Amino acid sequence: MSHVAIFGPGLMGASLLMALRKKSPGTSLSAWARREEAAQEVKQLGLADFSTTDAAAAANGADVIVLCVPVDRMEDVARGIAPHVETGTLVTDVGSTKEKLVPRLEKIFAPHGNFVGSHPMCGSEETGLNAAHAGLYEGARCVVCPTPATRADLVEKAEQFWKTVGGRILKLSPGDHDAAAAVASHVPHVAAAALVELAAMSPESARALCSSGFRDTTRIAAGSPEVWAAILSENRENIADALAALEKIIAGYREHLRRDDHQNIAARLAGAVANRGKIFPET
Amino acid sequence: MSHVAIFGPGLMGASLLMALRKKSPGTSLSAWARREEAAQEVKQLGLADFSTTDAAAAANGADVIVLCVPVDRMEDVARGIAPHVETGTLVTDVGSTKEKLVPRLEKIFAPHGNFVGSHPMCGSEETGLNAAHAGLYEGARCVVCPTPATRADLVEKAEQFWKTVGGRILKLSPGDHDAAAAVASHVPHVAAAALVELAAMSPESARALCSSGFRDTTRIAAGSPEVWAAILSENRENIADALAALEKIIAGYREHLRRDDHQNIAARLAGAVANRGKIFPET
Repeated sequence: MSHVAIFGPGLMGASLLMALRKKSPGTSLSAWARREEAAQEVKQLGLADFSTTDAAAAANGADVIVLCVPVDRMEDVARGIAPHVETGTLVTDVGSTKEKLVPRLEKIFAPHGNFVGSHPMCGSEETGLNAAHAGLYEGARCVVCPTPATRADLVEKAEQFWKTVGGRILKLSPGDHDAAAAVASHVPHVAAAALVELAAMSPESARALCSSGFRDTTRIAAGSPEVWAAILSENRENIADALAALEKIIAGYREHLRRDDHQNIAARLAGAVANRGKIFPET
Repeated sequence: MSHVAIFGPGLMGASLLMALRKKSPGTSLSAWARREEAAQEVKQLGLADFSTTDAAAAANGADVIVLCVPVDRMEDVARGIAPHVETGTLVTDVGSTKEKLVPRLEKIFAPHGNFVGSHPMCGSEETGLNAAHAGLYEGARCVVCPTPATRADLVEKAEQFWKTVGGRILKLSPGDHDAAAAVASHVPHVAAAALVELAAMSPESARALCSSGFRDTTRIAAGSPEVWAAILSENRENIADALAALEKIIAGYREHLRRDDHQNIAARLAGAVANRGKIFPET
């Protein structure tokens, strides 16, 4: 990996630059930003060897290109890059959805088949370069999403790339990824936003009583509304199905409460403790 | 405040002992535990001047008594204390529900009217003496719940008590407290447990993708199932109503997604960001 180009120096992109500088010091780094000020900031902070708003110049000579822009801007950015990539170049991304996005990007890079979809699960409610840090990808689950059309050599290259910055690889089809991400990330986001909406429509005393529990439960709802609206829209079928399942579970609790069915409530809560312990065995 | 007796040296009770030792060094501290080993542990750690399993002995001479046991054990413990309190003694509690509990405890302490309901909002998913720390009550919202029957002098004494350990006082009727706590604490707990249940019934890949966002959103669901089943049961009418409202909000998102109504989704997410910012202005 002699030259990596990062498109979009926000939380994900700038953290990737910092991680590569640290973990792969011999690699030449270039950065592309939409706004001139952002390109300048990357330069001033020394995050990349070369920083520009010119897509062709940023892509030139890169053997790995990573698209770190919101999911609804991926295609536009990809179209500006596609004419400038070589046969051996890996183009991957950090987008939170895959099922619709991967075929679109595969098509744009079809001449050489450069594209392999990725999703490192280390975003947060924070955004922008100021929130970036070199350790963001350390230990993060990095999903790589090959399709029947994906070149095997580039899947391998994508896995190596994410391992370099500390990622733990999981290969899933784009469809399986999106069904899983709906449950692990997108539905929790909606639930968190819904809890805030409930508090907002309740009497002032409800908001006065919100403390650390409410704060943590709803932390992710502080994420960028534009970025998240695009994510939810891209994965809307899976999310709608999972929301329906969540509503059913919540309605089950509500029915237990109406009947004061202490035993079933205690059993469900105990199940949640046990299942959460399996998901996060280290805690 | 010359002598405080803490009943139940778990997270809330032991933290209270530590906070009082630090903030009110002249105050004599006694502790009551149900189990002999717990009373011994309090003694060995020097958290109280006197530690016992004998309720009468612990209550004897105390001018403030705080019930720090789970809500479904409050009455039993209170009955063991009532014969031993004096006219000037404040008896208060840390229970997460108030509407049903306060009248029951008021009745038990009716001869002198010693009881004032309290709820310091600083519990967590952690339990037990090992999780306790002197700073738990620092800056915590402490709800004091007088009723028409409550003695004004003891309401004042309860407010002073919570201020001593760093609490920020809010006075609410027991009914208003429970409606507010349903939204701020009890419904988020159910939502967190429901998200874990959804992940548990989904394919393995969904659990593999659960990262820091899911972890924080569901943190409170790691709380003791017994303690929480009792809380949910005590406040079941308010919680069931608030769950119904939450289901409606979530169903609204689901309908937006089915129609791919990007504009409404973005507006609701932006509303959640703004409303959360008002609830936690410092973040």
